Amino acid sequence: MIRAGIVGGTGYTGVELLRILAAHPDVDVTVVTSRTDAGLRVDALYPSLRKRIDAVFSLPDVEILAQCDVVFFATPNGTAMLMAEELLEHGVKVIDLSADFRLQDAEEWRCWYGIEHACPDLIKKAVYGLPEVNREAIKQAELIACPGCYPTAVQLGFLPLIESGLVDTQHLIADVKSGVSGAGRKAELAMLMSETGESFKAYSAGGHRHLPEIVQGLARAAGCCVNLTFVPHLTPMIRGIHATLYGRLTSDAADIQALYQQRYNNEPFVDVLPQGSHPDTRNVRGSNNCQMSIHQPQGGQTVVVLSVIDNLVKGASGQAIQAMNLMFGFEESQGLNALALYP
Amino acid sequence: MIRAGIVGGTGYTGVELLRILAAHPDVDVTVVTSRTDAGLRVDALYPSLRKRIDAVFSLPDVEILAQCDVVFFATPNGTAMLMAEELLEHGVKVIDLSADFRLQDAEEWRCWYGIEHACPDLIKKAVYGLPEVNREAIKQAELIACPGCYPTAVQLGFLPLIESGLVDTQHLIADVKSGVSGAGRKAELAMLMSETGESFKAYSAGGHRHLPEIVQGLARAAGCCVNLTFVPHLTPMIRGIHATLYGRLTSDAADIQALYQQRYNNEPFVDVLPQGSHPDTRNVRGSNNCQMSIHQPQGGQTVVVLSVIDNLVKGASGQAIQAMNLMFGFEESQGLNALALYP
Amino acid sequence: MIRAGIVGGTGYTGVELLRILAAHPDVDVTVVTSRTDAGLRVDALYPSLRKRIDAVFSLPDVEILAQCDVVFFATPNGTAMLMAEELLEHGVKVIDLSADFRLQDAEEWRCWYGIEHACPDLIKKAVYGLPEVNREAIKQAELIACPGCYPTAVQLGFLPLIESGLVDTQHLIADVKSGVSGAGRKAELAMLMSETGESFKAYSAGGHRHLPEIVQGLARAAGCCVNLTFVPHLTPMIRGIHATLYGRLTSDAADIQALYQQRYNNEPFVDVLPQGSHPDTRNVRGSNNCQMSIHQPQGGQTVVVLSVIDNLVKGASGQAIQAMNLMFGFEESQGLNALALYP
Amino acid sequence: MIRAGIVGGTGYTGVELLRILAAHPDVDVTVVTSRTDAGLRVDALYPSLRKRIDAVFSLPDVEILAQCDVVFFATPNGTAMLMAEELLEHGVKVIDLSADFRLQDAEEWRCWYGIEHACPDLIKKAVYGLPEVNREAIKQAELIACPGCYPTAVQLGFLPLIESGLVDTQHLIADVKSGVSGAGRKAELAMLMSETGESFKAYSAGGHRHLPEIVQGLARAAGCCVNLTFVPHLTPMIRGIHATLYGRLTSDAADIQALYQQRYNNEPFVDVLPQGSHPDTRNVRGSNNCQMSIHQPQGGQTVVVLSVIDNLVKGASGQAIQAMNLMFGFEESQGLNALALYP
Repeated sequence: MIRAGIVGGTGYTGVELLRILAAHPDVDVTVVTSRTDAGLRVDALYPSLRKRIDAVFSLPDVEILAQCDVVFFATPNGTAMLMAEELLEHGVKVIDLSADFRLQDAEEWRCWYGIEHACPDLIKKAVYGLPEVNREAIKQAELIACPGCYPTAVQLGFLPLIESGLVDTQHLIADVKSGVSGAGRKAELAMLMSETGESFKAYSAGGHRHLPEIVQGLARAAGCCVNLTFVPHLTPMIRGIHATLYGRLTSDAADIQALYQQRYNNEPFVDVLPQGSHPDTRNVRGSNNCQMSIHQPQGGQTVVVLSVIDNLVKGASGQAIQAMNLMFGFEESQGLNALALYP
Repeated sequence: MIRAGIVGGTGYTGVELLRILAAHPDVDVTVVTSRTDAGLRVDALYPSLRKRIDAVFSLPDVEILAQCDVVFFATPNGTAMLMAEELLEHGVKVIDLSADFRLQDAEEWRCWYGIEHACPDLIKKAVYGLPEVNREAIKQAELIACPGCYPTAVQLGFLPLIESGLVDTQHLIADVKSGVSGAGRKAELAMLMSETGESFKAYSAGGHRHLPEIVQGLARAAGCCVNLTFVPHLTPMIRGIHATLYGRLTSDAADIQALYQQRYNNEPFVDVLPQGSHPDTRNVRGSNNCQMSIHQPQGGQTVVVLSVIDNLVKGASGQAIQAMNLMFGFEESQGLNALALYP
Repeated sequence: MIRAGIVGGTGYTGVELLRILAAHPDVDVTVVTSRTDAGLRVDALYPSLRKRIDAVFSLPDVEILAQCDVVFFATPNGTAMLMAEELLEHGVKVIDLSADFRLQDAEEWRCWYGIEHACPDLIKKAVYGLPEVNREAIKQAELIACPGCYPTAVQLGFLPLIESGLVDTQHLIADVKSGVSGAGRKAELAMLMSETGESFKAYSAGGHRHLPEIVQGLARAAGCCVNLTFVPHLTPMIRGIHATLYGRLTSDAADIQALYQQRYNNEPFVDVLPQGSHPDTRNVRGSNNCQMSIHQPQGGQTVVVLSVIDNLVKGASGQAIQAMNLMFGFEESQGLNALALYP
Repeated sequence: MIRAGIVGGTGYTGVELLRILAAHPDVDVTVVTSRTDAGLRVDALYPSLRKRIDAVFSLPDVEILAQCDVVFFATPNGTAMLMAEELLEHGVKVIDLSADFRLQDAEEWRCWYGIEHACPDLIKKAVYGLPEVNREAIKQAELIACPGCYPTAVQLGFLPLIESGLVDTQHLIADVKSGVSGAGRKAELAMLMSETGESFKAYSAGGHRHLPEIVQGLARAAGCCVNLTFVPHLTPMIRGIHATLYGRLTSDAADIQALYQQRYNNEPFVDVLPQGSHPDTRNVRGSNNCQMSIHQPQGGQTVVVLSVIDNLVKGASGQAIQAMNLMFGFEESQGLNALALYP
């Protein structure tokens, strides 16, 4: 049984960590911090956790967190980078769900996130927590940078094509749709139900912070620069991401369906659907699965990959726990076997 | 490990049984029947079950079902009453999620359901599967009539008041709101998203089939006739029932909050919220919990009880599995500990 | 052509006034104020108004507003009472969509709204803007207190029963459900789509500010005190209110359906549906109509009235314009003939 | 005042024609046919039309329809082609909202729609009813093929780029999202709210019937073949289409924003938003407008056009009435000035 701490327990990824860890047999959540709600019972804020989470929000305190075996940061960007170093020095493993350690280039990080990185030296030490790419490194890691939700859906969808060199890496398009929980639990006019319900829109078409993260991951797989157009959209539902990916094949011969099935054959949480399928976000809602399918419309040169995840599970808290399982030698799917809630 | 069969596996209560039983350590689902989809893999129809349910829909066949230890009927009304007797004779325990055995009066059943009851003799043998009322009888039962979704939310909400004789049983009102999954998985114009989305309506205000079932349960608790006005409504969401119950107090003295807490103190799935709370259906979505709170507006004679459940879990498949656990001596909450999916 | 001003044009009732007045042949909107967005084009904030509303938000200024023939207050409570007197002195007619002048008792107002009323003398001068009750007074009025959304749906539903003395006024129940736009355009955590979508809850069961307003209106109709239990709920849709009203008949003989049809026969915006109907909020969405139906379940003593409106139209801005039409001698339905948007 | 008939008045485009025409000063709807609901009052099926549409569904009868000046076909594919010829012979103008006359190649029509075309000779006579391309031809037309909903959003979005020769026509991508009303008013399992609510999916990625229609229109504008990848998606809302279009610029120099503004400068229903905007489907809901914006992410070669319409208005019934206005010499926007319903 390991002791886990959660910094920033009042956001959606925080409460999702609690939901999943409540059923994890090897983890005891001993600390849940919140600056705004310190002193309040966790289940007073989240009645869905009643009878199962018997904790009180506390102020974040490194001394107390240092008694944990692992600390999750479910915080806004810019918080983990202020506390990670000290925790690591105490021998605590750190899993950061924010963006602080995702980009390997501190200068690029500054450009997109608008603040100076507080501990650029740690960046090199951070392991990008996408098990389908970095499983062995994750097992050895002390600091995990959990992938963003969009980057998870897009990279898993593009990787087989790019790793196999079958696609023109200079003309990739990712048209991605997210449910509104991706915006987090923040009082914002634009995220009111009156504003987002019954309506669909693109946003940040000029450039979204997840772009450099995706490009970094795809470039690593390609072994060269890639050119990606990434347009995120907001769709009127709470959970789910659907990535529609377009690439141009550079060769005719390949059996793309077989390629994908083979690539993900042993992956516990990536599921390539039968030819002709269309994945539906509801079929992964609440689960850690990524489901995908591959199409070649009119038998042409353009390949279309459809990839869906739950943004709060495989796109955040579930993937973080998958990494934790690997880091501590637990079974990789421990605590992550819940099936999607359908309908 | 017991063997379970599901008759009518293509409806929402059928797939919900599968979702829950997939994680139940003591049950092996060996038969899933469907007249319309026989021959099809279950996970081809329900991709959310991929990798976890390795079954093929078969035609319902009593000989095959008779090899099960328990058979669930997740069928339309009128099916279980044709097959239950033979299964019981083979020593199979039967749990019926439909309405066939809910009413103790076969004539009343005929009035509300429009067909003659096929095996009125069995009705007396059937135990009404509401554990909070009938726990000991359920443990001994061979045939369970699972309560309807509305009756579960309404009875749990009214029971403490009625059992304690604190309320005028001649003027009870239940204003209840249900998500659209309560209508089942049937191709009906009225249940299209274009028809039910972004809209709210009452239906069957003149009389709904769940009325006699609720009245029967409340009358049993009261020890006398009760008079209930029950108006069901359709609310634009998928899962969840919210019952708003109105009763007139016949005495001033009682501490109603304490009464409710005491009544449900040992119940694993009924949770009385702190004074002043308002339960929210999202906090029980996907879980087997009923959450409720009690109000006395303006300190007057009218007590208002707010009671929420997930119609497909505590209102159907979860409650059926709770009964099964009792019947087979498993821990009552085995397989039913999933927390609600929030947000 | 009259000149109209709108104070508080950035909220939902403000933009709804603009939507309706854009098509009103007798009104020119000359001033739209907003403290937060002064200087911004109205259609920059509300692209739905592009090409039709050529105005810029200005700071509220009584001198400028005094040049209007009518000024609408689409402001939070507490604003209109600070400016109304001066405008009235300039001969401007004032239509207040907030609660400032709804309660005739300034002390009761203070109790429910938590601040001292700024101009209690004006209260007596204010006419409650429910045309179905106060049509002649509205025609002569200089200051209109527009009814709240809940009070509109509830009063229209109860009035025929109460005016005719057929119902026990000591045991009235109003179980009312509102779409989320009723909470206004405010950045609040509780109104995020992630919080309100796919979920249903009651709120303020202990006492909501619209209760004294409804009671005041019903008591006036009854000619005596009334006792009402009012429980508001939030339903996961944007527009619409559905009131489910319960009353106990004091006499058997009446033809309630005929009573309602007769009462509202000449009303342009109240529509009594045929016996057996259930009104649906979608059928009034975007229109100024109230649709209702009446049921007597099981032929008993309890009468159930179902009454629906669009909270932003008949429950706010449409009703305000209906009052304006009466005040200025326009046809009562001028500008208000838009049909509901279905589906 | 002209007389209009509607064949197939029970579907969503039929009721939308009725909603709009009820407010059109120059049109009297004299016939509304329905095979399934003949004999029923229109407002019994559609209570939103009460007090405004005083018609009864009749069986379709060419003799009766021939007394109209214009007949709209709001029917499933394959109906208009059986009746159009006879109506035209009677001098009736025909506006077909179905796909029967959209494709100029009868053989291609057969391939995609699966039946032989019943009157291939009429195809040449049909004018494609997109006013932004065919305004003058529509004025002279006797038979209009109304564009499909996807084709309207996609063509309006791509046309300026293609007409100006600035984009590589061999690599066009249209990733398009539709609300569920696009599937029509048909009892289908897949369109239940339980199936489509809170979920997002692509469909027909392998080839959708609107593909050849879009390609035909773009090729005409390009003066050469075009290659388009078109992936439609279903988004959990009722009304609205959002097209996200990707093209590769063949030249660096152009000011694309200016190009679009100039192209649509005089169009009453196409609105190019300011640079940097993202159109939102809610801002055109219930209106005949198309709003669009143009982006060039990272200043690269890929141009992204975002184009939104209400699928039932500009994508169907509104556009049909716009064509009718042109055919009969009415003001083009007559009856079509309703503003979008926001929120």
